[in-house]
Amino acid sequence: MDIALLAHDQFPERAKTAVGVLRYGDDTVRAVLDRSHAGDRVRDHVPNVQNAQIVANMDEAPPVDALVIGIAPIGGGFDDSWRPDVRTALERGCDVIAGLHTFLTDDEEFSALADEHDCALRDLRQSPGDLTVAEGAAGGVDAEVVLTVGTDCSSGKMTASYELRDAARERGIDAAVVPTGQTGVLIEGWGIVVDRVIADFAAGAVERLVETAAKEHDLLIVEGQGALGHPAYSGVTTSLLHGARPDRLVLCHVAGRTAVNGYESTPLPSPPDYADLYERVTRPVSPAPVVAGMLNTRSLAGEAAADAVAAYADDLNCPATDPVRFDIDGDLLEAVV
Amino acid sequence: MDIALLAHDQFPERAKTAVGVLRYGDDTVRAVLDRSHAGDRVRDHVPNVQNAQIVANMDEAPPVDALVIGIAPIGGGFDDSWRPDVRTALERGCDVIAGLHTFLTDDEEFSALADEHDCALRDLRQSPGDLTVAEGAAGGVDAEVVLTVGTDCSSGKMTASYELRDAARERGIDAAVVPTGQTGVLIEGWGIVVDRVIADFAAGAVERLVETAAKEHDLLIVEGQGALGHPAYSGVTTSLLHGARPDRLVLCHVAGRTAVNGYESTPLPSPPDYADLYERVTRPVSPAPVVAGMLNTRSLAGEAAADAVAAYADDLNCPATDPVRFDIDGDLLEAVV
Repeated sequence: MDIALLAHDQFPERAKTAVGVLRYGDDTVRAVLDRSHAGDRVRDHVPNVQNAQIVANMDEAPPVDALVIGIAPIGGGFDDSWRPDVRTALERGCDVIAGLHTFLTDDEEFSALADEHDCALRDLRQSPGDLTVAEGAAGGVDAEVVLTVGTDCSSGKMTASYELRDAARERGIDAAVVPTGQTGVLIEGWGIVVDRVIADFAAGAVERLVETAAKEHDLLIVEGQGALGHPAYSGVTTSLLHGARPDRLVLCHVAGRTAVNGYESTPLPSPPDYADLYERVTRPVSPAPVVAGMLNTRSLAGEAAADAVAAYADDLNCPATDPVRFDIDGDLLEAVV
Repeated sequence: MDIALLAHDQFPERAKTAVGVLRYGDDTVRAVLDRSHAGDRVRDHVPNVQNAQIVANMDEAPPVDALVIGIAPIGGGFDDSWRPDVRTALERGCDVIAGLHTFLTDDEEFSALADEHDCALRDLRQSPGDLTVAEGAAGGVDAEVVLTVGTDCSSGKMTASYELRDAARERGIDAAVVPTGQTGVLIEGWGIVVDRVIADFAAGAVERLVETAAKEHDLLIVEGQGALGHPAYSGVTTSLLHGARPDRLVLCHVAGRTAVNGYESTPLPSPPDYADLYERVTRPVSPAPVVAGMLNTRSLAGEAAADAVAAYADDLNCPATDPVRFDIDGDLLEAVV
């Protein structure tokens, strides 16, 4: 499928979904919509992903099958400044795909336009109607279950999940990512956006995903969400910890980050303290050690990045890497699988 | 208001809502519907609450203003064996109130009957449409915030909250319970059933409740939900811990319980280990010590109960009581307020 990715004013640092799709998706990205970088190319900002032009709006985008909203503001609302682009896309007969809490299908103008132009609105955060509470079934699946966890939101859990999957596949292991967020669901074409689920059923949703994926694959990398000490999203994180019943955890951290992103008065515990906290909370339901660390070193120069990874491995007392910048070596993979 | 409480086959041990309303509600309970105890009286089963007849079905209930569903099965579904009672209530012109995940208002037969007989269906688990993520505002309120937490579901958190409120009020403190579950919302006439909220917004819902109550009262006792090591509900518990930003925690436990209710293969951590876990998870966002213990000793004889409370206080290294069986003394209240 050919797509355009909307990421106004937030590409690339705060456009997690857009960058995830560029890096791991099967779709061909024909354009990124970002009015603050119009005229640039994607690789001017993000190396090692598929390249595309950056345009100011949908009028300037080449023909595509779908427009994907590639950003998700805190609270997950629809920003009305995106309305002309969505309108243009629908008028051109493109589907529009979003992972927002505010559903496109609830918007009267968009629904009418989609009907008129015979195209579809897809809300990735729409969850199944038959979810219920977790029963503990993920503990009995016939697959190894690894959960990526983080010291914060946007700490590289999805990236780590995909890089681990690819490294495992290179060794011949039948590995799959279990998608729990809008980007993963978009890339994989299935999954549940767990943060959208009724709180009582969040662990149950994760359990269902693990049971489903375990029928097809030997190693499941469950994409983590939020962080255990996050002021807003810790509930979702805990539901993942207890719903997935992981065998092992991988801790993701952004080098140099010392406070919760967007909640600057809330300091982050150190990575080893955080690893300890994850293990303690996991233990009563299903013990899982932190076996590897993933460090996002984008803010550091080459040598400083290698040093930071080495220090992170020392702190956690397990193998670590920056999975985008460096390799996932045999030791790390061995610890995870 | 005069009400009937539906609690078929589960009164009193598994009818938490019914017992809560009998003990702490302002409504007059005219009958409890429980086909397995028809002919008994409420006080044959629960001492020290308002008395009422137990009847087999709604046909046998005296005139009331409303029928309240007083039980909430795991998963919160509507049991079709209750349908004739709800039908009869509506045909008699009574409102029907429920705290289930399955909404009465989504049932076509009930909606039609309510229209026809000019009575109302109230779904307590229906949440406001404008919720969003927590911003940390509960940390700045002008009230002391105490959160009841538990070693399991149904461990006495709501009961402890009301008994603490009453003890504080007797000392002249302007205390209020912040209702976060269906029973609390029913009793207080306001609140949000947090486990029903979109997972991403659960902490935000709690924050809003605390901000609202803090405008009216000096001491807030936030009714806790679930347990931090619960296989299904731990996400809701964590959202309460971080959304409410409590100053102090009160740990509730059922004497002798060693496994999670309904998940018997999952052992409970000991109460002191559990207290430590709650403090560790709370700390990154807003530190709060466990300052008191509440022990449900219903299964124990008199002297054994007193011994169990003393041992529980020793284990937790803070004052403890069984708030239904014994007093909340000055030391305990001092620690909490």
